[in-house]
Amino acid sequence: MSSIDHRATPETALRTDPIETARRNWTDAGWADVADGMALVTSIMRVQQLMLGRVEAVLKPFELTFARFEVLMLLHFSSRGALPVGKIGERLQVHPASVTNAVQRLVAAGLVERSANPADARSVIASITPSGRERVLAAAARLNAEVFGDVGVEADDHDALFALLADWRAAHGDFRR
Amino acid sequence: MSSIDHRATPETALRTDPIETARRNWTDAGWADVADGMALVTSIMRVQQLMLGRVEAVLKPFELTFARFEVLMLLHFSSRGALPVGKIGERLQVHPASVTNAVQRLVAAGLVERSANPADARSVIASITPSGRERVLAAAARLNAEVFGDVGVEADDHDALFALLADWRAAHGDFRR
Repeated sequence: MSSIDHRATPETALRTDPIETARRNWTDAGWADVADGMALVTSIMRVQQLMLGRVEAVLKPFELTFARFEVLMLLHFSSRGALPVGKIGERLQVHPASVTNAVQRLVAAGLVERSANPADARSVIASITPSGRERVLAAAARLNAEVFGDVGVEADDHDALFALLADWRAAHGDFRR
Repeated sequence: MSSIDHRATPETALRTDPIETARRNWTDAGWADVADGMALVTSIMRVQQLMLGRVEAVLKPFELTFARFEVLMLLHFSSRGALPVGKIGERLQVHPASVTNAVQRLVAAGLVERSANPADARSVIASITPSGRERVLAAAARLNAEVFGDVGVEADDHDALFALLADWRAAHGDFRR
């Protein structure tokens, strides 16, 4: 266990899986037919909470949230280091308001610059600054070392789990097949 | 597709999976060894976002968030309809501050009552009220019908996916094996 996650440690681990308990409660309530769906949704919520906790603990010293890290990374990997703000929201599948907020904070921190879009007066371009590139690469190096290098899934299970999650995302229109 | 999720619809679906694009970028940057981990963590974040959007859209008319729904459901299924606030946080694996906040809002809405714990002066008991039970059962019926009954995962895949996610949760100390 990493020391990063202070909510779930061997000391605080529950003796029984709370989602199995919820599944039993659902079944006893006469909702057995939807208990599997409840268990899957609740599992996703908990894994996300555990991973977000680890990720944001690593990003904190870089003064980045995961949302802002993703925006910077997308700009870093774009061919010109710049994208229309609307396009960023589309690629990251997040609310326009959340992207606007993330970009504002990145601008305030000097990691991104905003400029008018010569091709479209209604849209705004966000560009990564040299200090934005430096910050996001340093943050990526820490995330790679402390989280992505060992996320807690057996290597043999990576492909199966990724494929099942991709099916699930595709079923909700996350991308087109 | 449900009409609930307004971020990802067939119209807004990306033509290529953005996580596959990120994986390629990671590999090209020389981080191939951690690209699988990045892809899994990002997959979890996106599935969670999609499911939370659906769940919270269903809960909105009930003036509940998923966090508050979970607190009410836990109290409803508890043998006395009451639990110490600290125990609620433990079972739901959420920050004490988040539970306190959820309980405060439930109390303000008349769905939960707080009382002193006769067994421990430092702890507070939260009890579900009759209107709390009515509200949470109505909300559960809608969630069961609109989300949990068809979460977007093929029935054949439910067990495999649940087991892989349970392994992942257990690896992070979500519960003890």
